[in-house]
Amino acid sequence: MLKPLAKAGILVEALPYIKKFSGKTVVIKYGGNAMVNAALKEAVIIDVILMKYVGIHPVLVHGGGPEINTMLERLGIKASFVQGLRVTDAQTMEIVEMVLAGKVNKEIVALIQRFGGRAVGLCGKDGGLITAKKRLEPTDIGFVGDIVRIDPALVRALVEQGYIPVIAPVGAGENGEAYNINADTVAGELAAALAADKLVLLTDVAGILRDQQDPDSLISSLRIGEAPALIEQGVIKGGMIPKVRCCVEALTGGVGTTHIIDGRIGHSLLLEVFTDKGIGTMVVQ
Amino acid sequence: MLKPLAKAGILVEALPYIKKFSGKTVVIKYGGNAMVNAALKEAVIIDVILMKYVGIHPVLVHGGGPEINTMLERLGIKASFVQGLRVTDAQTMEIVEMVLAGKVNKEIVALIQRFGGRAVGLCGKDGGLITAKKRLEPTDIGFVGDIVRIDPALVRALVEQGYIPVIAPVGAGENGEAYNINADTVAGELAAALAADKLVLLTDVAGILRDQQDPDSLISSLRIGEAPALIEQGVIKGGMIPKVRCCVEALTGGVGTTHIIDGRIGHSLLLEVFTDKGIGTMVVQ
Amino acid sequence: MLKPLAKAGILVEALPYIKKFSGKTVVIKYGGNAMVNAALKEAVIIDVILMKYVGIHPVLVHGGGPEINTMLERLGIKASFVQGLRVTDAQTMEIVEMVLAGKVNKEIVALIQRFGGRAVGLCGKDGGLITAKKRLEPTDIGFVGDIVRIDPALVRALVEQGYIPVIAPVGAGENGEAYNINADTVAGELAAALAADKLVLLTDVAGILRDQQDPDSLISSLRIGEAPALIEQGVIKGGMIPKVRCCVEALTGGVGTTHIIDGRIGHSLLLEVFTDKGIGTMVVQ
Amino acid sequence: MLKPLAKAGILVEALPYIKKFSGKTVVIKYGGNAMVNAALKEAVIIDVILMKYVGIHPVLVHGGGPEINTMLERLGIKASFVQGLRVTDAQTMEIVEMVLAGKVNKEIVALIQRFGGRAVGLCGKDGGLITAKKRLEPTDIGFVGDIVRIDPALVRALVEQGYIPVIAPVGAGENGEAYNINADTVAGELAAALAADKLVLLTDVAGILRDQQDPDSLISSLRIGEAPALIEQGVIKGGMIPKVRCCVEALTGGVGTTHIIDGRIGHSLLLEVFTDKGIGTMVVQ
Amino acid sequence: MLKPLAKAGILVEALPYIKKFSGKTVVIKYGGNAMVNAALKEAVIIDVILMKYVGIHPVLVHGGGPEINTMLERLGIKASFVQGLRVTDAQTMEIVEMVLAGKVNKEIVALIQRFGGRAVGLCGKDGGLITAKKRLEPTDIGFVGDIVRIDPALVRALVEQGYIPVIAPVGAGENGEAYNINADTVAGELAAALAADKLVLLTDVAGILRDQQDPDSLISSLRIGEAPALIEQGVIKGGMIPKVRCCVEALTGGVGTTHIIDGRIGHSLLLEVFTDKGIGTMVVQ
Amino acid sequence: MLKPLAKAGILVEALPYIKKFSGKTVVIKYGGNAMVNAALKEAVIIDVILMKYVGIHPVLVHGGGPEINTMLERLGIKASFVQGLRVTDAQTMEIVEMVLAGKVNKEIVALIQRFGGRAVGLCGKDGGLITAKKRLEPTDIGFVGDIVRIDPALVRALVEQGYIPVIAPVGAGENGEAYNINADTVAGELAAALAADKLVLLTDVAGILRDQQDPDSLISSLRIGEAPALIEQGVIKGGMIPKVRCCVEALTGGVGTTHIIDGRIGHSLLLEVFTDKGIGTMVVQ
Repeated sequence: MLKPLAKAGILVEALPYIKKFSGKTVVIKYGGNAMVNAALKEAVIIDVILMKYVGIHPVLVHGGGPEINTMLERLGIKASFVQGLRVTDAQTMEIVEMVLAGKVNKEIVALIQRFGGRAVGLCGKDGGLITAKKRLEPTDIGFVGDIVRIDPALVRALVEQGYIPVIAPVGAGENGEAYNINADTVAGELAAALAADKLVLLTDVAGILRDQQDPDSLISSLRIGEAPALIEQGVIKGGMIPKVRCCVEALTGGVGTTHIIDGRIGHSLLLEVFTDKGIGTMVVQ
Repeated sequence: MLKPLAKAGILVEALPYIKKFSGKTVVIKYGGNAMVNAALKEAVIIDVILMKYVGIHPVLVHGGGPEINTMLERLGIKASFVQGLRVTDAQTMEIVEMVLAGKVNKEIVALIQRFGGRAVGLCGKDGGLITAKKRLEPTDIGFVGDIVRIDPALVRALVEQGYIPVIAPVGAGENGEAYNINADTVAGELAAALAADKLVLLTDVAGILRDQQDPDSLISSLRIGEAPALIEQGVIKGGMIPKVRCCVEALTGGVGTTHIIDGRIGHSLLLEVFTDKGIGTMVVQ
Repeated sequence: MLKPLAKAGILVEALPYIKKFSGKTVVIKYGGNAMVNAALKEAVIIDVILMKYVGIHPVLVHGGGPEINTMLERLGIKASFVQGLRVTDAQTMEIVEMVLAGKVNKEIVALIQRFGGRAVGLCGKDGGLITAKKRLEPTDIGFVGDIVRIDPALVRALVEQGYIPVIAPVGAGENGEAYNINADTVAGELAAALAADKLVLLTDVAGILRDQQDPDSLISSLRIGEAPALIEQGVIKGGMIPKVRCCVEALTGGVGTTHIIDGRIGHSLLLEVFTDKGIGTMVVQ
Repeated sequence: MLKPLAKAGILVEALPYIKKFSGKTVVIKYGGNAMVNAALKEAVIIDVILMKYVGIHPVLVHGGGPEINTMLERLGIKASFVQGLRVTDAQTMEIVEMVLAGKVNKEIVALIQRFGGRAVGLCGKDGGLITAKKRLEPTDIGFVGDIVRIDPALVRALVEQGYIPVIAPVGAGENGEAYNINADTVAGELAAALAADKLVLLTDVAGILRDQQDPDSLISSLRIGEAPALIEQGVIKGGMIPKVRCCVEALTGGVGTTHIIDGRIGHSLLLEVFTDKGIGTMVVQ
Repeated sequence: MLKPLAKAGILVEALPYIKKFSGKTVVIKYGGNAMVNAALKEAVIIDVILMKYVGIHPVLVHGGGPEINTMLERLGIKASFVQGLRVTDAQTMEIVEMVLAGKVNKEIVALIQRFGGRAVGLCGKDGGLITAKKRLEPTDIGFVGDIVRIDPALVRALVEQGYIPVIAPVGAGENGEAYNINADTVAGELAAALAADKLVLLTDVAGILRDQQDPDSLISSLRIGEAPALIEQGVIKGGMIPKVRCCVEALTGGVGTTHIIDGRIGHSLLLEVFTDKGIGTMVVQ
Repeated sequence: MLKPLAKAGILVEALPYIKKFSGKTVVIKYGGNAMVNAALKEAVIIDVILMKYVGIHPVLVHGGGPEINTMLERLGIKASFVQGLRVTDAQTMEIVEMVLAGKVNKEIVALIQRFGGRAVGLCGKDGGLITAKKRLEPTDIGFVGDIVRIDPALVRALVEQGYIPVIAPVGAGENGEAYNINADTVAGELAAALAADKLVLLTDVAGILRDQQDPDSLISSLRIGEAPALIEQGVIKGGMIPKVRCCVEALTGGVGTTHIIDGRIGHSLLLEVFTDKGIGTMVVQ
């Protein structure tokens, strides 16, 4: 049991953040373990609803997780490769879109509604949210898209009406055809288009560790100017590199701060936003 | 080539309807041939966009057409029957939801966007739009649902922001599980919940014919009090009976007028709404 | 009887114009045959009311037609001339004002009201609408005025309240004395002051014909840069020259497009505004 | 020269009335000497403008004075009589309307504009202001009308936009034909329709005198219950009887107070409204 | 150091209260130790400012503490007694008002401003906030007043503009004379007049203890129906009785909940409002 | 008894000023005889309330008059001097603040409320109104302050809500400590911060006289460029010099006009504001 003064201390610490972020938009890339483990899933949903309670405007962008592969297997659609890259042909894309926009997306929406929030599931076709075009570099691998333009009007309208937008990373080409887009990229560019205050990437790591073996070596705050040196030194490496790049681009696009946090810790969203120290790595300009 | 006076006559006839219906909501059940034939599909989309242009607020509810069956077949999911009724078990429902909310719905949205309209695709889970429960009469046939409650707030908000809502007939149970619901029923109850001015059912017949063999025997306008006698006489029969019931319930729920029109005729929506004579059967209180 | 598709075609053509011109102001110079022939008069009034119905804001400026002459004759006031110009002395002006502002103006107002529109009759004295000064070139011919300043505030206020302003072309001098002003000029300068979208001059000719003998030689659209050459060639001549000048000045003053149309054709206003081809000559920048 | 304290006393007396009547509507029947004498005319116009300055909303209804007769004479239109009543036939009515709505009305408007106010001249046809029907009692004497309905929407809209409405007592029949209506009656019914705070009748007498020979016998305030006895006693008699009746009907219709004041005294409007004692006879419920 | 999950738990507990009380008014009677001890004083001020940060509207009513007595002593004004009651004569009242409204009140205001809040100091004379009359029961003891009427308009206006009202318990008699009023009473009646959500009395005890010797016997929540029995049993006694009465009257007057809390514990306001268990005794209907 | 025309003349003179100053702010320095003599006090209060009645926004800044000295004497606090300047030490300042903010201020508020106005008493601590710092020139004489910054937000908010702000000239230092500030200076700088239309200094002289012996030599209007010469000539001298400087600084700061008027004449405020000639000396740019 916590002592009154300890409790009071946390409140005295948290309340100014509530004032500070009230009315601000926070774009959250939701993926990894936090989408698989039932308890973590629930904690994320509760965090998002509580943020909305205190006047913050969370916007969720989700990935597709293992569910796309399961469905492709069930249908006997085999992966094909060109120059070592996995190809998303038309029949694959049909399944990707259905699973992302018709299954994963609507499950998250139903969960938020069940816990008392109000959510609306969207994909990039809705309201012209994401216009995309085929990626041709390094080669044509089918319906994998790059973002051409984000139109945030629909997301803004829903946010102002009290809804939590939940977005599947599918974009629309100029003839209305669907493209599969990287969810981190969608989250980053959407945050920029919304002039969001924060972009939070929920990952399966603790943040950026100076020494991978030492959990106490977490870098709490990183200026974007420091990133190149850390990449060169190998401190930032592998899958963390595109995450950091995503943060840098969001910051350049006008987002206030970006955060790479550990989705494996319950309520990591609340802890990152409402405590002085936070829980992951904040990347700032 | 039309003569100026003939052209002017049509405008003089149509413009008062534009004033009359400006700011009013029209719920359209979109299904049948008009969803299959490419030219008809385009004509419906154009009609809906033009209605929005002149200040009317169309709301689309669509069915699933043959695409659900195709996908079930591809997955080798076989239909099972209880007491002669087709069963929607959990794995069937998963596919029904994905196809309706993730494929058919988003295709319509993309088409409206491509022709210059602004659309948002929803299912009954979004914003708590449709709360459903399992239908247990005459027997439990799985995830087939009845509507418990419609919350039209999200649809209203989108309409006011200039969007055309496109709705897949999937409802959410109390634990967030999905239910398959009849699209005509969704359209009718949504029209009532929105206090819509009109409910329009796009069908594959000309309307109600007094004599099935004589296309000139179309009943242009029917009072609900006349329906029972016509059913008894066999003038209204078969699949037309539930359509007429749907109209009667919508009217009882406060909808202004209801219309059963021929989706096989191009632009039948415009002709029904903007001409004195209309093109199908209008059912009124 | 028109076929459904033909009807639908006209609607598909007209509805985008309704969207395009909704909320826009159209200043109409109303004169000539369309003010004399009862059926044409009614068609103009209906057109104006229908435009208001669909969200366009028509503003009428009328001439005085033969009624001024009739009244002057009844009073035995004879026309006098200075250097071949007709003189409007004080007693003539008194009659001109009474007939324009107290008879013709109020008759149009009453007609609009009777057909279901809401109109308000004004002259240039009302709300300081038209400040005028005596024209002294080429010589003093009495109370014939040039416009010094238009104050469109009253017209704007009435338009926003849903009224159709009907304006007699009488201006007020600095001591409140009345001046007779050319109605085309009032319409053109008022259109500029209102930043109107359109100026429409109802005339007794088909528009500008390339060959006066050939009604099929109508020039549908004319850029103002082309006008001088056409005047030089004699294609534009006589009474058409000041009409074209009026259009040019309105366009220079910020009006969107200007139209010289045939008031002898019923509903020519609707046809010009709501069809692709129009019915007269559109003069644009 | 007034002493400072005397000046201050008048201000201390007047300012609370300004607060009291701010935002209130005052309908003024303007006629008689005050419309003929140039100095009085100017004083009335200044009073009306000053009332508007301090937040009161004056609305003027004017009579036609001798100008109608002058014009009828010039045209050689002779008065005809039926059962001793003067007949207003069609050609007379044409002149009555022109003079009232096209001459007298616009002259008052021009005068207000010249002194810095903003005025709009109306007749009963404008905006459906006065719907009238032919008076058939005691016999048909032509285009003399009774009021069927007042629609005060246009007057309200103009008042709210800062204009002073100036109204000619002409009503519109159901086919748009004009009727001549008594100006006191128009003022009284308009005051009721506007739920005006005050109705002021400018007359050529001092108000109601208990003894016609004694100007000090002015009745400053009269309850409507006292009127019948005073009529019986002959204190109220002749032309004063319809004036008092007009006041009684306005009060019954919801007007706050009514005033019969002496238009022959300069600035009688200001003195009646802004001083404790007033200058004429106030009739109250 | 708290563990992340423990921290998160407190946030998950507190945030719904922030939503619940956002936009609600909380009237706080500020007195006792919390006004004397510098650290406690600061904690109260911080709590009040943080409440305002997260959208709650605190209103402070303060007592005078020992400062009145100090000043009376410095001036050599001796206490006099009538029937054992201390008398507040005119010269005493003059000092009471000066100290309350001119010293204690403005010191609290200055402290809130210094810590970043925005405060306005008022007494009952300002904006007609508290109308009072002399208390004559059991005998006349001078300028001790009872509340006749609270006009909360000024407090509401300040709250809506973002200010924290700080109120000295001085009322105004009908001739503008000052009366000294019990601060608990002012807080209670003001809470009722504001339809406040909460009334919080900061006291120098832990709340209502079932057993005075056992701090663990605190009654966390009390229904007003239970109070009489507890008074009879001596559980509620002495100075606690008027506090409970004050709560009962506030609840009867429409206040949501009332709270008697321990002002000797730092941040007791935050703990009472934002934690499930609270820290004192909540009295509810 | 005044004649009607004389009365009307005053109204015709005053009403345009009411329009001109409606919605404008007038800052009044209230001090001297007008704060001591009961009849004059009442006249000032009535003037201020009447100004508010007709839409002007008066703001009062008051001095402390003899009441501070009386209280200091009662407490036996002796005046001390440094270099001939009177010292305001901490215990003196405590009394100054209590008397100004807790006694004089609240008495004026109570008087305005009693006469039907709505007033709120403030000092410079409230809402951060006046930030001050110690005056160190020519030497440290204690808590005498200079203005660092005026934040007029609170005064503006109260004015817009219909209150008359009454302000004691006490400022707050950076640690919340109180400073005594010259009331003329507060009035002048507040007028500038509010972009007031007028600053009026109520004094005990007639205004600026060209010849002190001749009351008819009053300078009605003075341009600030003329002031230096008049000071050199000795026409402006003694206590009038800082008053004129205060006016000059207010004018430089953006105030419309400034007025030095005779507070010994009843209703001098009304006479200065609402008559052509005024009663004192107007200083303008």
